[in-house]
Amino acid sequence: MDPNCIFCKIAAGQIPCHKLYEDARVLAFLDLEPLSAGHALVIPKHHAARLDGLPDEDAAAVAAVLPRLARAVTRATGIDAYNVLQNNGEPAGQVVMHVHFHLIPKPANAPRQPDATGPGLGIGWPAGKLDQDAASALAEKITAELG
Amino acid sequence: MDPNCIFCKIAAGQIPCHKLYEDARVLAFLDLEPLSAGHALVIPKHHAARLDGLPDEDAAAVAAVLPRLARAVTRATGIDAYNVLQNNGEPAGQVVMHVHFHLIPKPANAPRQPDATGPGLGIGWPAGKLDQDAASALAEKITAELG
Repeated sequence: MDPNCIFCKIAAGQIPCHKLYEDARVLAFLDLEPLSAGHALVIPKHHAARLDGLPDEDAAAVAAVLPRLARAVTRATGIDAYNVLQNNGEPAGQVVMHVHFHLIPKPANAPRQPDATGPGLGIGWPAGKLDQDAASALAEKITAELG
Repeated sequence: MDPNCIFCKIAAGQIPCHKLYEDARVLAFLDLEPLSAGHALVIPKHHAARLDGLPDEDAAAVAAVLPRLARAVTRATGIDAYNVLQNNGEPAGQVVMHVHFHLIPKPANAPRQPDATGPGLGIGWPAGKLDQDAASALAEKITAELG
């Protein structure tokens, strides 16, 4: 636990939350600044700023909760679609430096455009095309880093 | 395996990919239409259209790969920040109906605005404020659905 981390304090019960789920490794609660009804956060109790610093077993424990939480949120809200988003680093939009997965319901009639005013996540998707030769070299490089 | 699913065909080796990682339950490979260099997909081999239909152990297996794949991608690309995104349902932007997690590097100098032209994910974040009374009722409803 990091004594200066707001999510560690929530996990320790020092700051209240609208709790949805809890087990030995994982806590889920409602986001205080939701993008849509049912917007939930799922966090590991283990403190790590980013996913690349989280032990594999804590990442697994968090994700193991996502299918049932998604079923519960979609049933409770009546909103069928949803995005799961997890940001790492300030350039990627991370604000609280403790790993958290957003589960964000997306109403069927909501705009999906990146300039969407909600409800739900707005997605900007500036897709390119993969250069095959460069991709082979990059895949080799990543695979080598995986060890 | 769903014989009409492109990701099932990739997992079965019937369609080639730039493979990054593989184990008994999980496959990771480069996205053919990347938002940025190193944009990777991580999928369960088990066919499920959406995360809410995926067995918990497959969700866990996919997420257990994310920390080390994130370390490998950030090292190989030199891009430190990244978003992990997983879409469920057409309103949420899902195109291929087989669960997949995007790992999308976000260059530090890239715009983060929802109208971003890239590289990386553009995020529209129309946050509201949680109504405390409504939140208590919603949390109870979701918790009840969790059983």
